[in-house]
Amino acid sequence: MEALGLFASPADAAPAQGFAPPRAADLPDAARARGTKVVILGAGTAGLTAAYELGKAGYDCTVLEARDRPGGRAKTIRRGDRLTDTDGVTQVCRFDEGLYFNAGPARIPNHHVTLDYCRELGVAIEALVNANAESLYFHENTGTTDYGELASTAVTHRQAKADVYGYISELLAQAADQGALDDVLSPADADRVVAFAQNFGGLSGGKYVGNGRRGYVDAPGAGHDAGVVGTPPSMTAILQSQFGSRFSFEFGWDQAMMMWQPVGGMDRISAALAQAIGGRRRITYDAPVTRIENTADGVRISYRLNGRVRTIDADYCIATIPPMVLKNIPTNFSQTTKDALAVPTAANTGKIGLQYGRRWWEEDDKIFGGITATNMDISGIWYPSSGFLGRKGVVVGYYSGSYTNLAVADREARAVAQGVKIHGAKYRDELETSISIAWPKEPYSLGGWVSWPGGRGAAYDHLLRPDGNTYFAGDHLSYLIAWQAGAFESARLAVTALHERVAATAAA
Amino acid sequence: MEALGLFASPADAAPAQGFAPPRAADLPDAARARGTKVVILGAGTAGLTAAYELGKAGYDCTVLEARDRPGGRAKTIRRGDRLTDTDGVTQVCRFDEGLYFNAGPARIPNHHVTLDYCRELGVAIEALVNANAESLYFHENTGTTDYGELASTAVTHRQAKADVYGYISELLAQAADQGALDDVLSPADADRVVAFAQNFGGLSGGKYVGNGRRGYVDAPGAGHDAGVVGTPPSMTAILQSQFGSRFSFEFGWDQAMMMWQPVGGMDRISAALAQAIGGRRRITYDAPVTRIENTADGVRISYRLNGRVRTIDADYCIATIPPMVLKNIPTNFSQTTKDALAVPTAANTGKIGLQYGRRWWEEDDKIFGGITATNMDISGIWYPSSGFLGRKGVVVGYYSGSYTNLAVADREARAVAQGVKIHGAKYRDELETSISIAWPKEPYSLGGWVSWPGGRGAAYDHLLRPDGNTYFAGDHLSYLIAWQAGAFESARLAVTALHERVAATAAA
Repeated sequence: MEALGLFASPADAAPAQGFAPPRAADLPDAARARGTKVVILGAGTAGLTAAYELGKAGYDCTVLEARDRPGGRAKTIRRGDRLTDTDGVTQVCRFDEGLYFNAGPARIPNHHVTLDYCRELGVAIEALVNANAESLYFHENTGTTDYGELASTAVTHRQAKADVYGYISELLAQAADQGALDDVLSPADADRVVAFAQNFGGLSGGKYVGNGRRGYVDAPGAGHDAGVVGTPPSMTAILQSQFGSRFSFEFGWDQAMMMWQPVGGMDRISAALAQAIGGRRRITYDAPVTRIENTADGVRISYRLNGRVRTIDADYCIATIPPMVLKNIPTNFSQTTKDALAVPTAANTGKIGLQYGRRWWEEDDKIFGGITATNMDISGIWYPSSGFLGRKGVVVGYYSGSYTNLAVADREARAVAQGVKIHGAKYRDELETSISIAWPKEPYSLGGWVSWPGGRGAAYDHLLRPDGNTYFAGDHLSYLIAWQAGAFESARLAVTALHERVAATAAA
Repeated sequence: MEALGLFASPADAAPAQGFAPPRAADLPDAARARGTKVVILGAGTAGLTAAYELGKAGYDCTVLEARDRPGGRAKTIRRGDRLTDTDGVTQVCRFDEGLYFNAGPARIPNHHVTLDYCRELGVAIEALVNANAESLYFHENTGTTDYGELASTAVTHRQAKADVYGYISELLAQAADQGALDDVLSPADADRVVAFAQNFGGLSGGKYVGNGRRGYVDAPGAGHDAGVVGTPPSMTAILQSQFGSRFSFEFGWDQAMMMWQPVGGMDRISAALAQAIGGRRRITYDAPVTRIENTADGVRISYRLNGRVRTIDADYCIATIPPMVLKNIPTNFSQTTKDALAVPTAANTGKIGLQYGRRWWEEDDKIFGGITATNMDISGIWYPSSGFLGRKGVVVGYYSGSYTNLAVADREARAVAQGVKIHGAKYRDELETSISIAWPKEPYSLGGWVSWPGGRGAAYDHLLRPDGNTYFAGDHLSYLIAWQAGAFESARLAVTALHERVAATAAA
């Protein structure tokens, strides 16, 4: 098949730009492909994608899903949702109808294949506000770090950037202008650095004295209201605040704006995938897998449904169950595979959704979406990127692993207490209801994502190959861990490998 | 009334945060207010706002509008729209149904009062992508400036920022580390500057060598696809490109993200205002004003309608007609007022909307909204901030005054030729239709906005006061020129002044 150019070479199989969906026409005898049965374990993004892409070539796919819904960690929490964790603690979501938050993945970068699937599946998208000049930085002193006069002061991203860029530019211009960089800069380049600094820092005569970029004490308006710019804190205060250490977040390959989310919740993608593959015709819900067995010429999967154990035989299996879960399911995998599945460790993370009766962040603070970043253990406050100008809204009050082992009520109390430090008493007083998720305690996930201790080594490499007729897929088998794109790309890789094998078998 | 605290003092009347809509209850004899007739000239944002706010107190408002629609310069161009300019040249918009672009104001910052009106009027908003890591910078050499090896090269904002911030940080770290800034930095601050530079520039051992922030030659994916980062150009090449001079645009008080637009077009705001005041019960369209006359106890306005000149008498007038137009309408204003109206000069600007049969900027280039900035005279290319993942779209191909005096076909040809330099032949080949607007040639506008030569001086001050019973309002009488917020704020100021006067008269 390689000679025909139908498949990429194994060394770089299915790169993001190079994936071609399997086609029945790729196979010498199309009928054989139509008769190929594949059982896919897990109806998360990877499992649904595998079924979707294999379905394009006529593979007969069955998806087994332990939960009562598709999507896996791509979970949107809405009114009436019931969460029971591995401790047996149950929460029921009391949000108003129409309000929600994305408990798992919440953002999609421009360049991820996720958007291609949204286009192909007709999933509408809208902006996910990952950066906003009006959201805040808040650093409180710790036992080891003194943030100076701006400690425990909420400062807008706008103001922090204007002040940091202002002073940094002042230093840069001075260094370049006074010849301190003459060993690395030509005179022409030194002039260019000074010109850059003047513009970038908004300097006046080489000095930073504040300007409208940082915001106004009294904003410009009509008539004689020219606006009043505030006076910036000292250079030392700005440097000591360490707000500048936050800026590079926004430059990240996966974090730079623009970013996107499906209209109506992240689970609209998995809902569209589930529908595209035929829904319950293809997917069996509430069906936890109890055994995976490679047989002489295929696979035999056992699962529980309605209290009884059932089995299904197929030619191939694609297991997209997270390794922390999969390693506990009896199999006849090789010992190397079993050992490999035990290597990745679960990321401890979780979120709380706080429903407020009033969108005070918009009305009072002019914050329309975005994230307030803090060194407190909530890590950040996410203002909603939908429902703008409406009455109520759900704020994500932490994105953190520090809350996993707290009782549900304590999670809310702790997160709210930190929010009060930033936003004042309304953060507590106007709260209506909350619900929190701790991914390590979420059945069938047992973690937010995985880490590969020591990096992607032999165990990672091993799981990129099938064990018998069973393939593995999921974001954990990608360089896009914790992103849905990792699940999409990994599923494509497994699908390509499986299809190549079927094609080669059919041709034999 | 001031003593009662109902009105702010004239010196700072109606600041953005302090406006209180007029109420009938403010007046000693509410019936007198209900009987007060106000004629408002112009159904643009200022005129509609004046009618809307005065209506809250029961004023009897009539709005005269020369055009056949509300909104003035807040114009959204859609299929079937007919534009006839002051030269008599007519264009008809041939866009597909559902496609449009905002020919006038197109963005709303978080902090503008415009969003408060959207909330109050129920106008849904969505993100306006004013900055996007995937949009481009493109500088071509001019007779006076050589941009070096990156001249005429389209570079993503992402890459330009990573490279500029990388090298600049390298310089900064070196200067701080080697003691070149010891006269202005304490040792502790010098350490903080170095730490900032390492993080901000993404340095490796104090040097910038490129990293994922700038993007990948081969993006990370699944399996063994770790991604390949490209090698940055030299420091000299980066400095000479002058891309860094573009960054501060995004820091501006009025330009920093997030920014917003009404769902469906900017004219949804004026449509909602027009509806809120009673539509055609209050607004007479196709009614150009032919004379404004202050009378002994009110105003008399003459206007043309259906070929006949009619008059309307009222107690007060609020004239929101742009000064370039108003100065040509016969009045019995004082000579000082007439002279003042002749002072502001019209801004020369315009836009072209280019409909493409395919959203190639999204499909090929992963550009979802945002603006490509260039030193060519198109100034920029705006990718649409709505209709994402759809089939067709309208790109704004210039925002510039350089096209005003070109024939319609030449505008398209010139703008497309520049776009081809950035995006290649598809920019020409996939174009389906276009329409352009030149604001200086737009009847009843005669300019995009105004400038006050020499700054806001005596003429500006004079027009903040009424001439007889005629008040003036519009963005030209604000510090928010060219922004709808300027029109809102100015209308509020005029409304407050008029209401104070009526209240004082009523109390007398």
